[in-house]
Amino acid sequence: MFNDEFYMNLAIQNAQAMKGQTDPNPLVGAVIVNDNQIVGIGAHMKAGEAHAEIHALQMAGKKAQGATIYVTLEPCSHHGKTGPCAEAIVKAGLKKVVIGTLDPNPLVSGNGVKILEAAGIEVVSGVESEKAWQLNEVFNTFITEKRPFVTLKAGITLDGKIATHSYDSKWITSAESRRDAHQLRHENMAILVGVNTVIQDDPELTARIPNGRNPVRIVIDSGLKIPLASKVAQDKKADTWIFTSQQPDEAKEQQLLSAGIKVVRTGGVKSVDLKEALAVLGENGITSVLIEGGGTINASFLEAQLIDKVILYIAPKLIGGKGAPSFLGGAGFDKMNEAIELADAEITKIGKDFKMTGYPIYES
Amino acid sequence: MFNDEFYMNLAIQNAQAMKGQTDPNPLVGAVIVNDNQIVGIGAHMKAGEAHAEIHALQMAGKKAQGATIYVTLEPCSHHGKTGPCAEAIVKAGLKKVVIGTLDPNPLVSGNGVKILEAAGIEVVSGVESEKAWQLNEVFNTFITEKRPFVTLKAGITLDGKIATHSYDSKWITSAESRRDAHQLRHENMAILVGVNTVIQDDPELTARIPNGRNPVRIVIDSGLKIPLASKVAQDKKADTWIFTSQQPDEAKEQQLLSAGIKVVRTGGVKSVDLKEALAVLGENGITSVLIEGGGTINASFLEAQLIDKVILYIAPKLIGGKGAPSFLGGAGFDKMNEAIELADAEITKIGKDFKMTGYPIYES
Repeated sequence: MFNDEFYMNLAIQNAQAMKGQTDPNPLVGAVIVNDNQIVGIGAHMKAGEAHAEIHALQMAGKKAQGATIYVTLEPCSHHGKTGPCAEAIVKAGLKKVVIGTLDPNPLVSGNGVKILEAAGIEVVSGVESEKAWQLNEVFNTFITEKRPFVTLKAGITLDGKIATHSYDSKWITSAESRRDAHQLRHENMAILVGVNTVIQDDPELTARIPNGRNPVRIVIDSGLKIPLASKVAQDKKADTWIFTSQQPDEAKEQQLLSAGIKVVRTGGVKSVDLKEALAVLGENGITSVLIEGGGTINASFLEAQLIDKVILYIAPKLIGGKGAPSFLGGAGFDKMNEAIELADAEITKIGKDFKMTGYPIYES
Repeated sequence: MFNDEFYMNLAIQNAQAMKGQTDPNPLVGAVIVNDNQIVGIGAHMKAGEAHAEIHALQMAGKKAQGATIYVTLEPCSHHGKTGPCAEAIVKAGLKKVVIGTLDPNPLVSGNGVKILEAAGIEVVSGVESEKAWQLNEVFNTFITEKRPFVTLKAGITLDGKIATHSYDSKWITSAESRRDAHQLRHENMAILVGVNTVIQDDPELTARIPNGRNPVRIVIDSGLKIPLASKVAQDKKADTWIFTSQQPDEAKEQQLLSAGIKVVRTGGVKSVDLKEALAVLGENGITSVLIEGGGTINASFLEAQLIDKVILYIAPKLIGGKGAPSFLGGAGFDKMNEAIELADAEITKIGKDFKMTGYPIYES
């Protein structure tokens, strides 16, 4: 019952509870167990304040002696505002350290473990490592891949449609789902669509919730077809960046630049290099992107293996129609065994709808 | 807390627990409450044995006096093997009867209530009526609509596909889902597909689980295109019925009849009248049909408002492709607000997949 996974999950839950209040620091939780009794719990709560391990050590006091600490992230080795946690663990006389995931930063990863092992402490790492990694999936992806964490979001019917055959789409999902989706926009630094979505729907792409923070608006537009009168080109509610091909219409490019829109040339003559686009976003400090594209854009990112997480709001509705667009278009995979599976797929109820989250598994 | 809904749900749970062991009788549960104490619970357990109310009354004994009985189905008024339950309730001196759903049989519906009210007992009906109705959804539909209860079943990807663009479909769902689907075949008296499914997949349409009962195999085939060499036409593992149009190819019809296959002409010159087909099945005592059609057949039944329940096994996979077939084809609805919503939509996990059940709401 009370095994490593149990204690690590408690640490993960406490870390998760601090979501949104630790920025720019990661979510971290810790649990100290001595003789099958929990003697300390902790979580990092605010940048500049104590790390999770320090809170837990203070709670445990003398009972930390000879105990085991479970910590979701490798204890730090650097002298920050609270001193290196690895050294604090050594000083407190712990016997064993169980780690969820190593530090993602290649420059320091493993350094905390080295300090602990040098002091004769037993170290086990990789317990509930996926969940521990997902706690800070945005930051971890940014630091290891040097590009933003990419979430594909769509509101669909049970038959996977984002509109009827006549392209009517208001509304597929319930008010609760749409509010949650605006929260997602607020949480992501950028929102990305294809130019066809701009042409067809002329969306604002803002976070319409109280105190919502508008993401940077990214449009994939190889031919610079974006209407100059579109809201994202005009309303100044947030920055708008257009990624285009190598040789765009230069007159149109000038008009867009004059309108205060950033235009970035990428890739080949006719298409946008999506990987390169994400790298550019990463260089500009954009750590997270929410894709709300149509079926073509969504499929392009999926085929390029650039989607890290999928969030679907599934309305319990049937629309039918061979010509009704699905949230995934493109050519599609040829064989069923090439289908991209989602790891950790979970569905919860939201209003009348279901919210599905999962992580694509790319085979190669 | 302990309100009418609470007690009715307990009665429903006990009724549900007897699923499969009361045939041909309905599932019924009862709870007796006196002075906020549960003093009796009961369920109908086996045809020929006591009804739910009688079990609960026996358990309550003298405490039934002045009590309230919650019963999922209107107490019977007829002299069956255990005497009319309505009279037993009167004799036991109950004060109040709370009913989930009235007797679906129009010939006797309301008669139990009349006996109770004539004796001065307060009667409330319609508490958790949808759930109470669903307990016996197959029988209730058969008795009120004079046609089988129709369940649409499909195994799909998250993007609603039943195959790739090259029509590869093995396998979409996990072994657990496929086993559950065979259980569905076992529970339904008939299974229905379109002739294209027979031509493309040549399925056996049998219940491949231990002691599985094979359903009657129904093929919708307006043009009598079914191959004489197909398994359903040849293997004699279960009866096969073909519903066709008014003027089929008579030579082919003769060949099929000679092969021991039932051929039923319906509807117009070129198409099968689906409503008429279900009526014919009802006349032949078929109380339940499982549709495992392709997108065209599924959409035809949905558009004809003939699907009572939808069961989807949703694999957490993405396949994509504009040309990949969805489980709902046809023309589809024109406006999103014409989409058919599902009532009581629920999703549970099954293996790696999700199982969604719901009940289409038809507006007109």
